[in-house]
Amino acid sequence: MGKRIVIALGGNALGNNLPEQMIAVRQTARAIVDLIEQGHEVVIAHGNGPQVGMIQNAMTELTRSNPEKYIPCPLSVCVAMSQGYIGYDLQNALREEMLSRGIQKGVATVLTQVEVDANDPAFSKPTKPIGAFMTKEEADVLVKERDYSVVEDAGRGYRRVVASPRPQSIVEIQSIQDMVDAGLVVIACGGGGIPVFKTEGFHLKGAAAVIDKDFAASCLARQLDADCLIILTAVEKVAIHFGKPDVQWLSELTPDVARQYIADGEFAPGSMLPKVQAALEFAESKPGRTALITLLEKAREGIAGETGTQIHL
Amino acid sequence: MGKRIVIALGGNALGNNLPEQMIAVRQTARAIVDLIEQGHEVVIAHGNGPQVGMIQNAMTELTRSNPEKYIPCPLSVCVAMSQGYIGYDLQNALREEMLSRGIQKGVATVLTQVEVDANDPAFSKPTKPIGAFMTKEEADVLVKERDYSVVEDAGRGYRRVVASPRPQSIVEIQSIQDMVDAGLVVIACGGGGIPVFKTEGFHLKGAAAVIDKDFAASCLARQLDADCLIILTAVEKVAIHFGKPDVQWLSELTPDVARQYIADGEFAPGSMLPKVQAALEFAESKPGRTALITLLEKAREGIAGETGTQIHL
Repeated sequence: MGKRIVIALGGNALGNNLPEQMIAVRQTARAIVDLIEQGHEVVIAHGNGPQVGMIQNAMTELTRSNPEKYIPCPLSVCVAMSQGYIGYDLQNALREEMLSRGIQKGVATVLTQVEVDANDPAFSKPTKPIGAFMTKEEADVLVKERDYSVVEDAGRGYRRVVASPRPQSIVEIQSIQDMVDAGLVVIACGGGGIPVFKTEGFHLKGAAAVIDKDFAASCLARQLDADCLIILTAVEKVAIHFGKPDVQWLSELTPDVARQYIADGEFAPGSMLPKVQAALEFAESKPGRTALITLLEKAREGIAGETGTQIHL
Repeated sequence: MGKRIVIALGGNALGNNLPEQMIAVRQTARAIVDLIEQGHEVVIAHGNGPQVGMIQNAMTELTRSNPEKYIPCPLSVCVAMSQGYIGYDLQNALREEMLSRGIQKGVATVLTQVEVDANDPAFSKPTKPIGAFMTKEEADVLVKERDYSVVEDAGRGYRRVVASPRPQSIVEIQSIQDMVDAGLVVIACGGGGIPVFKTEGFHLKGAAAVIDKDFAASCLARQLDADCLIILTAVEKVAIHFGKPDVQWLSELTPDVARQYIADGEFAPGSMLPKVQAALEFAESKPGRTALITLLEKAREGIAGETGTQIHL
């Protein structure tokens, strides 16, 4: 019996440059097509950390060389470009893997905007480093002229930091829904989605922010009424007392227990914490919904309930 | 009675940089939503000349600054990025214009690959200039190390030239078809589509090429079984004896007459010629299909048969 599954893939899992990406997507495609072959409906969201950093650096270099011709490219536009950059390779790898197994299914990448709240507290405290390292002088110019936030990063130089607000809703949800209903494999919310917020009227303005891809995938899964959200990570299961002798790997978690562990500081911020939070949000949004945190290569067993950390009511 | 319409928008009509693009898409959206408001199903293809040039320049600058980290970005990947760059603004402008008129319709951009023939004669004679001007020394390095074709451009320096092969089929046609059937406004084949060709098995390889957006739109219109293909241009009608005292503006053309005018050299290569050829291909592909060549602001009157050049059997 097929389930509707949203998968959140890490940007780092896609490699740091184009040759790495082309290899990484093949392995990713095999694991995802395993699920499609079992009859599940699959929607893929993915991160874009290294990729959007690279694109932002490229656009910055362009502006440096042609200051009279180009203004600095807004981060939201760089995210849009990263959806093309990653989606192209990922959809091709999925298409090829499906065809090689005799599965006739369309696959498509939808450019996706995700609405955030302009009053999200994240905007007053940007924390997410993005783009290349700069000298103090370069950083000072950006702070003064463009109102950027910057941080000094462990002696390696200065980097721009941007906000990482919570996703509120997926702008292109109707398109994604229609495509899934039509039986297509859809790649959406690339890089957590292009962050936008409502201004006056119906206008959506790009935000100088990046959205966490796990939270975006959780939002997408809820709006698509998915049965399952798979958050892929570098460990097979979530653990408490991680890195200590009494480490305890968790096979099942209820939202309440997960919330208690979060309160106890069991999960590292910027690492396992947002994954557990995103999983929790989905799991408690409706009875029957399961969030699964595991390794890419364990996704199939995880969906069968055999491994990974399962979070549900 | 609504028609299914594919519109081919020029990349130049989208502006040369981001601020120009944001203004241009608003005007474009008004004209397109006029058609949607009349009950037509609209699919939009667009060019990307200035945009893909800019992105290629940015990626080249990045490689120059970080040669150890990044390989030069293939043109096909730059086209994929340009679909994100343009689609983001275009779909937002369409969304906003529709909502402001009370039209509740989803709009989405689909990353689109277009298959070309690896044996297309265009590959042996690249003619399409792309990216920034270079010195002879810079050009020589690329010719030697990367097998690029370059041309000297009227004393302004050297530029890379790439092939412009004919589109054979739209890889994501099923996705586009399903989205149109579901009532969505779809942006597809951006920049003429990401050019790919089949290699062994099911693998698609990016081609160092750009596809003419009018030919791509014509191919898309045929595969979608559209009623009408609108090719937008800078004049209200196609003319023979263009620029001469006896100029004659054409309201109707049959494919046979169009072919005769082409043989007579009436249409400028790289300008009106490919538009007439693309229109002709669509018009003669099936009875009942009409290609229309006109100005953006005359599209509505053109669809009503009141202006523009109508080409049909």
